Amino acid sequence: MVTTADPGTGGSAPVRVRMTVAYNGTGYRGFWAVEGQRTVAGDLVEGLEKVLRHPIELTCAGRTDAGVHATGQVVSFDADPNRLDPERLQASLNGLLAPAIAVREVGVSDPDFDARFSARARWYRYRVRSAPVPDPLRAGLVWPVRHVLDGRAMNEAARQLVGEHDFTSFCRRPKPAPDGTERSLVRRVIAAQWGAADDEWHFEIGASAFCHQMVRSITGTLVDIGRGRLPADAVSGILAAQDRNQAGTIAPPQGLVLHRVDY
Amino acid sequence: MVTTADPGTGGSAPVRVRMTVAYNGTGYRGFWAVEGQRTVAGDLVEGLEKVLRHPIELTCAGRTDAGVHATGQVVSFDADPNRLDPERLQASLNGLLAPAIAVREVGVSDPDFDARFSARARWYRYRVRSAPVPDPLRAGLVWPVRHVLDGRAMNEAARQLVGEHDFTSFCRRPKPAPDGTERSLVRRVIAAQWGAADDEWHFEIGASAFCHQMVRSITGTLVDIGRGRLPADAVSGILAAQDRNQAGTIAPPQGLVLHRVDY
Repeated sequence: MVTTADPGTGGSAPVRVRMTVAYNGTGYRGFWAVEGQRTVAGDLVEGLEKVLRHPIELTCAGRTDAGVHATGQVVSFDADPNRLDPERLQASLNGLLAPAIAVREVGVSDPDFDARFSARARWYRYRVRSAPVPDPLRAGLVWPVRHVLDGRAMNEAARQLVGEHDFTSFCRRPKPAPDGTERSLVRRVIAAQWGAADDEWHFEIGASAFCHQMVRSITGTLVDIGRGRLPADAVSGILAAQDRNQAGTIAPPQGLVLHRVDY
Repeated sequence: MVTTADPGTGGSAPVRVRMTVAYNGTGYRGFWAVEGQRTVAGDLVEGLEKVLRHPIELTCAGRTDAGVHATGQVVSFDADPNRLDPERLQASLNGLLAPAIAVREVGVSDPDFDARFSARARWYRYRVRSAPVPDPLRAGLVWPVRHVLDGRAMNEAARQLVGEHDFTSFCRRPKPAPDGTERSLVRRVIAAQWGAADDEWHFEIGASAFCHQMVRSITGTLVDIGRGRLPADAVSGILAAQDRNQAGTIAPPQGLVLHRVDY
């Protein structure tokens, strides 16, 4: 068996491991490795290598930005079966990585499982709190806005996102593919809906995949609609324009949580 | 009119101001000034002096410990009426002190009002989450415990606290009064009750006043009871012993919130 990550097991074939991870993104420069910065992936790999004592090559379902949280991020990697005890690995990692990171589940998966490419859908939730004075106990966890929001208008707008669309207007322009071709920003949104929860608005969106800043750009635009800055029917036009400048506000990272990945 | 704090108003009699303040205690060494440390009072006074441009002497209802939060802390101070516009003061402070501190209300009060000595009761809430894996999004906001807790036993124990008791067993030994006499640790607990809220246990306790570490010491002891380490009827005996060593665990600061002060 050939794998891209060779855990150097010196004989035993490596096994593919799947982990579900929660983290508070406040102190991190995002999920993915940025040279010399504190990242979730950096802490996870350091912890895994300390416990398993071999190099780890990590794959993740969603590369969350700096300040973005997760309750259901999924990662996969190869491990030496002689050094892997899933229950002990979970306990050791939770000891090493608390309180910012918590490993919720560890298990051996199908050898073909890939946290990124096997994922059928990602689900994000965004928390907005509309109140005259922000709540310090929710600092770093919600987007505090002063305006009263019109939930019906936001939901009318959200419905226009469902289905397969080119999300160029809601995405940061990606680098071209290695062969020089432009990357497609066509994505399929499965569901997009606002709900009220106590004194907060929660936006829930699921899609086959998301391009960079897509959830925050969509959320900010819908909040612009909720506060009356844009009409409720603006979304269809913004999508059709395929122009980044047509979208509204980009919501700040701290209200966003990757909460589930479907395989 | 003579006041201990002379705001140097050069003529106009100062007015007494009452503010309700929320804060996230995570980054602070507590409410009250510790030389050279970051405190809530330090940040508040710095903000007030910047806006009002005269020295401020602050009084507070509850001197919360490092890491303890508040949604309803009350403070009072004297201000130059010529420089005081309550609404603008609130907006300016919220601009200066966000996101860790938020001023919820500002108003001119009776000149005799004193945030500490006028208070009739303080109400605290303590959040405990019992789960196998802690939630990083609640890090710094709840006490994560692994044990399943027996709510009925904790409430049976809590009822033994209600009424007037000597809380020596649940308090850090105070320094003697300036005249050398021992300070009384008799306090009147108005109500003490556990409730379930989603996947958390919330302990609510109100008293005339609290001595140092009293809520955390009581909460920790009740959690010891909830997990079966101590019997439910232990509280009466611990109170009667008037001995600090009889109490159980001291709950960590981060689950605690000062949420209301009655006047």
